[in-house]
Amino acid sequence: MIIDRLFDAVEKCGPVCVGLDTSPKLLPQVLAAEPAIPSAILEFNRRIIDATVDLVSCYKVQIAHYESLGVEGLSCYRDTIRYARGKGTIVIGDIKRGDIASTGEMYAQAHFSGDFETDFVTLNPYVGSDAITPFLPYLEQKEKGVFILIRTSNISAEDFQDLHCINQPLFMHVARRVSEWGKDYRGSHGYSLIGGVVGATGSQELAMIRRSFPGLFLLIPGYGAQGAGGQEVSKAFIHGNGALINASRSILGAHKNRADADRRFDDYAREATLRMKKDIRQWTR
Amino acid sequence: MIIDRLFDAVEKCGPVCVGLDTSPKLLPQVLAAEPAIPSAILEFNRRIIDATVDLVSCYKVQIAHYESLGVEGLSCYRDTIRYARGKGTIVIGDIKRGDIASTGEMYAQAHFSGDFETDFVTLNPYVGSDAITPFLPYLEQKEKGVFILIRTSNISAEDFQDLHCINQPLFMHVARRVSEWGKDYRGSHGYSLIGGVVGATGSQELAMIRRSFPGLFLLIPGYGAQGAGGQEVSKAFIHGNGALINASRSILGAHKNRADADRRFDDYAREATLRMKKDIRQWTR
Repeated sequence: MIIDRLFDAVEKCGPVCVGLDTSPKLLPQVLAAEPAIPSAILEFNRRIIDATVDLVSCYKVQIAHYESLGVEGLSCYRDTIRYARGKGTIVIGDIKRGDIASTGEMYAQAHFSGDFETDFVTLNPYVGSDAITPFLPYLEQKEKGVFILIRTSNISAEDFQDLHCINQPLFMHVARRVSEWGKDYRGSHGYSLIGGVVGATGSQELAMIRRSFPGLFLLIPGYGAQGAGGQEVSKAFIHGNGALINASRSILGAHKNRADADRRFDDYAREATLRMKKDIRQWTR
Repeated sequence: MIIDRLFDAVEKCGPVCVGLDTSPKLLPQVLAAEPAIPSAILEFNRRIIDATVDLVSCYKVQIAHYESLGVEGLSCYRDTIRYARGKGTIVIGDIKRGDIASTGEMYAQAHFSGDFETDFVTLNPYVGSDAITPFLPYLEQKEKGVFILIRTSNISAEDFQDLHCINQPLFMHVARRVSEWGKDYRGSHGYSLIGGVVGATGSQELAMIRRSFPGLFLLIPGYGAQGAGGQEVSKAFIHGNGALINASRSILGAHKNRADADRRFDDYAREATLRMKKDIRQWTR
């Protein structure tokens, strides 16, 4: 079951998830100067994966960064996830889709088979359970899972997610439904194939969700460039597992302002990953 | 300003928006038998556009149906929107994206420039105003607009959208914020470049939103195959304008069970469009 594989990966390598949100701005000069940006990004991603794959539990690939480069960018998305999965690691497609009926089915097909197949995807719950239903037939096979947005890490999350709805903020209603949807899809460590995305910057909210819903595996963005550190994210864990901590820019861009960035950007990414693991470990052990 | 162009198109051609949710199942046999499905879909879309472009105000292209066919499918999405825009008609990219910060910027760039450029896109508001902010620089230029999900047409919309939050259902909070975000982007008929998506199947909700927020141009899915008819959608209009009524399967699939479907699928689409216009007109005049 893929959620058990993820649990084992966190046991073995720790909870760091590298976010391949590779914008052209993050490329070292030598790659930024190449004529075709999508192939430069693919080369960059491959070297980042090679330099970190033994240190991390998985990769999250943010599709928006590839979509912004059109059809060629999406070829690079396809090739990046294939490369990472070819290394035997787990890949999360950060797609945040959420649509109903036949449209939802098309998104499930798009991201759980064919060119863009990943192991997990992120989903947006606004349309209700219909956003999830089309993905369930894939979850039945036990080798696919989803992370549903619960409480995001941005300031305007409060616009709707924090609204008080019948004595609880909206995000707690969402967390409760996500937890209910997931109850028939639990792996051997109690975690469900249906997990949640919770931002690290709202650490009280994170603690409340963690306490209330121990069966949810949590995907936590917001570490590093977005401001949260090891202490904030430590609230996501149960005995050092049950959560992934994603970092993107702080790892991919670790080579910035280094004289030998062109040659050694992957070494700097590796060093940043090791620092991040250490930072998290000191708050969880 | 694009919202004025849309208003004028509805004045001239009526509120029908053809949804190019072209799944392989909707192709007539002769096209379904072609070896490359994406190119068969493109051929189908071109003929549907040619057969209806003088009758309708715009097209909505549902990206999920193309994404499900991988990189080749997205080439077909690109070529479909280019073909329609090349005819001088307005195109809505039904993408329902919604993400924050640099990721949101990437989605804005992806769908308001380059391969996938359309005139309007649909957005999901769950992450709050950050879902919209990255699109505003494009709206400042006045030739782009957005439709934000307010109340969807599916049954499980009630899971979250109908929750009572401080005396009002969540979707009314969303509608109010959408209306506020749009107040600086109004065209000469009072409608904003920031509109809303409201399902036709919840016709009380539709009436409530229409009454409370007269400056919102509304995009209404759910006509035809999803169950709503001319009477239900009539509540969306102010003097016959201010709303688009989308139909997909009832137009694209009008050739089903016809002996001459292979040759005349576009004629059947045209007839279905004319019937739909008549049905809506009888309830709005």
